[in-house]
Amino acid sequence: MTDIFIGNQTYFPEITRKIPFEGIESDSPLAFKFYDEDKVIAGKTMKEHLRFSACYWHTFCGKGSDPFGPGTQNYPWDAVNDPMTAAKHKLDAAFEFFSKLGVPYYCFHDRDLAPEGTSPIDSENRLMELADMARERQNATGVRLLWGTANLFSHPRYMNGAATNPDFNVLAHAGSQVKSALDATIALDGENYVFWGGREGYTSLLNTRTDIEIENMARFLQAARDYGRACGFTGTFLIEPKPMEPMKHQYDFDAQTVIGFLRHHGLENDFKLNIEANHATLASHTFSHELQMSVDAGLLGSIDANRGDPQNGWDTDQFPTDIYDTTQAMMVLLSAGGFQSGGLNFDAKLRRESTDLEDMFVAHIGGMDAFARGLEVADYLLNKTDLKVRKTLRYSSFSHGKGADFQMGKLSLRQLFSHAESMGELKQTSGKQEYLENLINQALVRA
Amino acid sequence: MTDIFIGNQTYFPEITRKIPFEGIESDSPLAFKFYDEDKVIAGKTMKEHLRFSACYWHTFCGKGSDPFGPGTQNYPWDAVNDPMTAAKHKLDAAFEFFSKLGVPYYCFHDRDLAPEGTSPIDSENRLMELADMARERQNATGVRLLWGTANLFSHPRYMNGAATNPDFNVLAHAGSQVKSALDATIALDGENYVFWGGREGYTSLLNTRTDIEIENMARFLQAARDYGRACGFTGTFLIEPKPMEPMKHQYDFDAQTVIGFLRHHGLENDFKLNIEANHATLASHTFSHELQMSVDAGLLGSIDANRGDPQNGWDTDQFPTDIYDTTQAMMVLLSAGGFQSGGLNFDAKLRRESTDLEDMFVAHIGGMDAFARGLEVADYLLNKTDLKVRKTLRYSSFSHGKGADFQMGKLSLRQLFSHAESMGELKQTSGKQEYLENLINQALVRA
Amino acid sequence: MTDIFIGNQTYFPEITRKIPFEGIESDSPLAFKFYDEDKVIAGKTMKEHLRFSACYWHTFCGKGSDPFGPGTQNYPWDAVNDPMTAAKHKLDAAFEFFSKLGVPYYCFHDRDLAPEGTSPIDSENRLMELADMARERQNATGVRLLWGTANLFSHPRYMNGAATNPDFNVLAHAGSQVKSALDATIALDGENYVFWGGREGYTSLLNTRTDIEIENMARFLQAARDYGRACGFTGTFLIEPKPMEPMKHQYDFDAQTVIGFLRHHGLENDFKLNIEANHATLASHTFSHELQMSVDAGLLGSIDANRGDPQNGWDTDQFPTDIYDTTQAMMVLLSAGGFQSGGLNFDAKLRRESTDLEDMFVAHIGGMDAFARGLEVADYLLNKTDLKVRKTLRYSSFSHGKGADFQMGKLSLRQLFSHAESMGELKQTSGKQEYLENLINQALVRA
Amino acid sequence: MTDIFIGNQTYFPEITRKIPFEGIESDSPLAFKFYDEDKVIAGKTMKEHLRFSACYWHTFCGKGSDPFGPGTQNYPWDAVNDPMTAAKHKLDAAFEFFSKLGVPYYCFHDRDLAPEGTSPIDSENRLMELADMARERQNATGVRLLWGTANLFSHPRYMNGAATNPDFNVLAHAGSQVKSALDATIALDGENYVFWGGREGYTSLLNTRTDIEIENMARFLQAARDYGRACGFTGTFLIEPKPMEPMKHQYDFDAQTVIGFLRHHGLENDFKLNIEANHATLASHTFSHELQMSVDAGLLGSIDANRGDPQNGWDTDQFPTDIYDTTQAMMVLLSAGGFQSGGLNFDAKLRRESTDLEDMFVAHIGGMDAFARGLEVADYLLNKTDLKVRKTLRYSSFSHGKGADFQMGKLSLRQLFSHAESMGELKQTSGKQEYLENLINQALVRA
Repeated sequence: MTDIFIGNQTYFPEITRKIPFEGIESDSPLAFKFYDEDKVIAGKTMKEHLRFSACYWHTFCGKGSDPFGPGTQNYPWDAVNDPMTAAKHKLDAAFEFFSKLGVPYYCFHDRDLAPEGTSPIDSENRLMELADMARERQNATGVRLLWGTANLFSHPRYMNGAATNPDFNVLAHAGSQVKSALDATIALDGENYVFWGGREGYTSLLNTRTDIEIENMARFLQAARDYGRACGFTGTFLIEPKPMEPMKHQYDFDAQTVIGFLRHHGLENDFKLNIEANHATLASHTFSHELQMSVDAGLLGSIDANRGDPQNGWDTDQFPTDIYDTTQAMMVLLSAGGFQSGGLNFDAKLRRESTDLEDMFVAHIGGMDAFARGLEVADYLLNKTDLKVRKTLRYSSFSHGKGADFQMGKLSLRQLFSHAESMGELKQTSGKQEYLENLINQALVRA
Repeated sequence: MTDIFIGNQTYFPEITRKIPFEGIESDSPLAFKFYDEDKVIAGKTMKEHLRFSACYWHTFCGKGSDPFGPGTQNYPWDAVNDPMTAAKHKLDAAFEFFSKLGVPYYCFHDRDLAPEGTSPIDSENRLMELADMARERQNATGVRLLWGTANLFSHPRYMNGAATNPDFNVLAHAGSQVKSALDATIALDGENYVFWGGREGYTSLLNTRTDIEIENMARFLQAARDYGRACGFTGTFLIEPKPMEPMKHQYDFDAQTVIGFLRHHGLENDFKLNIEANHATLASHTFSHELQMSVDAGLLGSIDANRGDPQNGWDTDQFPTDIYDTTQAMMVLLSAGGFQSGGLNFDAKLRRESTDLEDMFVAHIGGMDAFARGLEVADYLLNKTDLKVRKTLRYSSFSHGKGADFQMGKLSLRQLFSHAESMGELKQTSGKQEYLENLINQALVRA
Repeated sequence: MTDIFIGNQTYFPEITRKIPFEGIESDSPLAFKFYDEDKVIAGKTMKEHLRFSACYWHTFCGKGSDPFGPGTQNYPWDAVNDPMTAAKHKLDAAFEFFSKLGVPYYCFHDRDLAPEGTSPIDSENRLMELADMARERQNATGVRLLWGTANLFSHPRYMNGAATNPDFNVLAHAGSQVKSALDATIALDGENYVFWGGREGYTSLLNTRTDIEIENMARFLQAARDYGRACGFTGTFLIEPKPMEPMKHQYDFDAQTVIGFLRHHGLENDFKLNIEANHATLASHTFSHELQMSVDAGLLGSIDANRGDPQNGWDTDQFPTDIYDTTQAMMVLLSAGGFQSGGLNFDAKLRRESTDLEDMFVAHIGGMDAFARGLEVADYLLNKTDLKVRKTLRYSSFSHGKGADFQMGKLSLRQLFSHAESMGELKQTSGKQEYLENLINQALVRA
Repeated sequence: MTDIFIGNQTYFPEITRKIPFEGIESDSPLAFKFYDEDKVIAGKTMKEHLRFSACYWHTFCGKGSDPFGPGTQNYPWDAVNDPMTAAKHKLDAAFEFFSKLGVPYYCFHDRDLAPEGTSPIDSENRLMELADMARERQNATGVRLLWGTANLFSHPRYMNGAATNPDFNVLAHAGSQVKSALDATIALDGENYVFWGGREGYTSLLNTRTDIEIENMARFLQAARDYGRACGFTGTFLIEPKPMEPMKHQYDFDAQTVIGFLRHHGLENDFKLNIEANHATLASHTFSHELQMSVDAGLLGSIDANRGDPQNGWDTDQFPTDIYDTTQAMMVLLSAGGFQSGGLNFDAKLRRESTDLEDMFVAHIGGMDAFARGLEVADYLLNKTDLKVRKTLRYSSFSHGKGADFQMGKLSLRQLFSHAESMGELKQTSGKQEYLENLINQALVRA
């Protein structure tokens, strides 16, 4: 059970209890309408299926700044000036939030938890000091660490990349951060460790050797894997694809790019993918496409749950609210057997204009409800409509006879030619897309 | 030498000679300003570097139709009604055009050359009849076949895919077409054979098993490779990536997707990539990015030279005219040692509003001049500026000492940490992007 | 009441009755789940609110062709070769469809109804012959004409535009078509007449005088307005914005562009806007944005109901199925008092892969249900949540005191300065976007 | 003549003289290759044509931060802590830069010049103190103010808009800033005053009354105009369109939107447009399209010269380097008679990775050369090729007879019908786009 945690002070005094499930008839903005954590769907509770996680950076470090102005959100945990003290206040605020919201997991970057020190060793000491405190709060609340990661993109030294920097010294610095972040993740029993390739990419081919940079990235990940395994990390390493931003071109463009990279460099047994919805759409894919490609490769690890804006071309990291998206995501996930070490992490931020402290709760409640409802609708579609049967029938010509022979590699082009010659013209078979889309709208109410 | 070919009649009577090189001072729209086929650049003639090819489909089969209206271009070779006779007239017109334009290569789809018959055997017979005639014309003119391919996307039977169709019978039909198209390509000494995955993709995940479809695609390509090699084809098989259109999602999204696919299925020794400029930009990449990714993988095969519209989101297949694009493409190509079996094929079409017969020549001349000038500028940038030296210096920390050790996999994360600890903060190194961009503009005149 | 119409033969024998409303528990693909035409919402029946219309072109003239292949849908009304006979069969099929589906309206282009003749007069005669037949069928079924229009983009003569063609003779030809199409619309008691600027735009500024072309367009519309009014047309003229496709740039880019144009040329009392969802998103707007801009200007006329693909950059004209979109559209429409002469016309086409005759019904049922459900959810949000009250409160500072003075133009910059000086720093006011988005998801079930 | 200015210290000691014109053969990165300020083109010097301006914000206030990390560029004028002292150092650095670069103009936001004070009056006092100093430096160098503006988007109080804020008090605050910024602009003899609608737009229609907000914007601009005119400002007010970012939707979407707005609110005699290249492409337009629309309306005021990235969907504000873009812009401008009060302001920033102080010069030199070369090429195309003659001929049917009658509003739809009937089918006229595009590539060398 998650107990409510109060640290050095109460940061959310207006939230006096854990956010309750009140169901669809509730008028409270601070109650779940769909997320009933103990409700069983397809053999597991919602909590077990969805494995929600709150992210440290947007929620506790972000303040609403954008390229056109500074932050608008003034949070009480930022009130002190000393960075280490502020970090500790923030930690208390975070665990109060996690426990009041009722998320079983959280995620962090090294620099979210503790400010950078004067050298790698100093930074590591600061990080481990905070990690120790976080461990106490994990124990007190039952909240666990979904994953840790290192921020290898904010500091100016990484402006030309971290593992892909043209300068070996910068790469070494990045290595030092990953070592410490892995240490902290292991100390906190993190279930995964994530690499998002912040500035691993380029702004111009005129000054870039992509071959060197991508090879270095592989070498770097191998070193991280070896270190983590040697230190007893048994969780999953994750790569999070993104096509662009901040760099003009990011090397981990999309799921297929990363899958090819992992396999080519022998990393596919230790690494999986962390798919972010907004990164999928920036890459001209649907969220469910990226999930499906990862599942097909056996490499779906975890999910960064958010959404982008369909008209704007940058990472808006909005809270997920589109039930179509969550339904299709959950259909992919349910069909693949659900999460193993991964979860649904809200890599999402409040709009800059949402400045009430309660908006943090409201936004997360909306995201959790959206996925809970998506889970219900997905389960309905898979198990109470003819969608699955139709799909199976559609591919039935490969389950026997020559179709099956072909799949086993037994038919030559000449044999295909003979088969085609023997058939005469074929009958059209409707794809029934409109029928299937209508099923979803019905399920939105009926599920 | 290319001799001018005139077939059953003169189709381009106003072009009385092979298009000459007249240089920058010429005012003739029907002369080359930059493409001087015998001019030597970096040790090879322009003709040897660029290996231009005209495409059969847009130039001889397209008539300017679009989704909002039928064709506007009325060509004399379409005047007869009998499809086989029209196909023969078109062949004569094509070789007259190739020889007058002075392109050393051409490309075709099976259905461009000969209309579909009543069955696979009938279709093959028609195709081979035209291939025999084409062979004669190749011999008469010296024009050669850069590549052949099969049209597996126009016929309604392929509406749900060809090699990735849910119905094995359709897949078999596709196999029959590839067999015949390979036969024709071999008969015509084609240097490559291309697969563009027209409808290999999906419109909705609701009715699609991507795992089955992509596996079938691999199996299909293996069968094609085996057949081709058994029949003596020694050229290169090529995959042409495209992210979308006609399908919502195409499986061969971009270079990295295809590279990963080829390697995963053991196809990378027989298959390379055919990069199309417009497909690159539809995939949110630059043309040169897709070329560079292919080169890095050792898998650049050939190029479909055209351009898209930077504001519009569909395949406009315009003739290439942007010297920045051609320069950057040629920089990648020159640095990689140039084409082996590939070439620059103009997969480009006249605007629907360009209805003069001479526009066909004018457009190709513009495309050839754009790449010829790009070659000159690229050579200048690589060999007469400090661009290459700067790039080498930028990565020099990896050529010795610990950087070199790292690249050989000799440094652990702990060693990187120690190295970083020993360094202190690093100095910023400017990427000099603006300087390098200025070099290009200077080269546009100075080269 | 709509009676089922059967013409020269039964074209949809498997649909034996008017599509019934069966509600959310129905498993029939051929029944409405949400659209209960007599259900009263906010004082009007669903039928009166939604004013659904089927379009002649996609549904009866389209066959699933795309730029990569011909049509896949073989319809019985296309079986005869004679174009005028085929047109009559198509008319019978259309009215059978309208009456079985239960849509109160339809729309057409001149060339949908009757094939072009040998001259303007011949074309007009053909059109009026079909219009006479259509009138009989309107009378027999009660189905009415929402709007007519002229196809000024398909014929090759219009390749460089119709009203904006550089050649006056082409413009005159376009004028002749509009005259006849207006005559037919008047003869059929059409409630609106639409101009979609198919090729009114340009592909290159190098050969285009935009000033002349746009002025000519205004002159052309004035002539059409004058003719229509003189002939007794009392309905609304409509302009349908679209940003691009087929032209690189279309003059009627979006709602604001058209609103500015209409006002500048004194057309705003006769013309309103026909907003198409897919055109809105191609212009980087939301559907609801374009509706709202039209409402704000008092110029919302009618709606072309469909949807685009958020990843692909061309007009996919899919059937509307996204309840978020339909809800937000209906919120704008309900707040504005609903349609006057306009309606919801399904300018939408089956996927090329949807080849069953019943798919035509299934797709329209889905679209009608999506808007019916959107109407219910919109009404719930507007009338049973605090959304409207919050919005009013948000702007309350303008309803009195200095805010009201400002809106009346009574405050100078100096007075604003003094007021600001007197206030001290302002309190942040949250925009509550996440709260409002959560309301919608709750309403999707609760409404 | 511009004299080199050195203030409290030398900020650019390595630049010892005004950047010279050295021509195409120069290898110096710190010399102009194309911009020869006294060279006469089409009757005016390059300096008179181009009216270059450097911007204060990117160049002196920006430090390379982006949403993923803080600034990378450490400039000597930021070394002191006191904001007013730093502002004075920055002013000295700026005028040293302007005078060494040789730009005749500069532009600023109020907050660039002086930091915000504790109240409107205090802020105004600070601004005027710096304006006095700027005036001295203008006099010393001959550098003039192209335009001033107020930053109404960075401060948190403006998060929901300034002139379009739902709260009147915020609007009043915005008014106070505009008053002071106008005062400063007038004091400095600014030739224009700009409004860029930073956060004038919305993030969600759920909480927004667009009708109120847009009306308030008009009222606000009227008040600003009235104040400025009363205070003796005789320059041009300018609106700078942008479609999105930071808001999801910005009200000043593009040129046509703004033109319609200005005319509707009676602002078109005082206000013109400031067209930014990168904003044009974000709005799915070409740069030259937005210029042409402004020229057609008689409302082209000034230009923000930069470029975006064709693949990435946010404002990258790169320095302009594409000669195709600058050529087409200069063709529009030359055809329209050139600038009146406007100029070419480099609203462009160094890449975050460009951290050498000299990069500031290199980047501006590149931008100035790109426009100087564009001017030369444009002049060549307009005056030494048949481009203009072809365009005139293309529209010649409107210069006499019925075409001219039509343009004068003398032809009815019936008369157009009769004319069309009398003509028979029309001949196709090629648009010759490929020919015209080839002319440009030739001109790139030949001009």
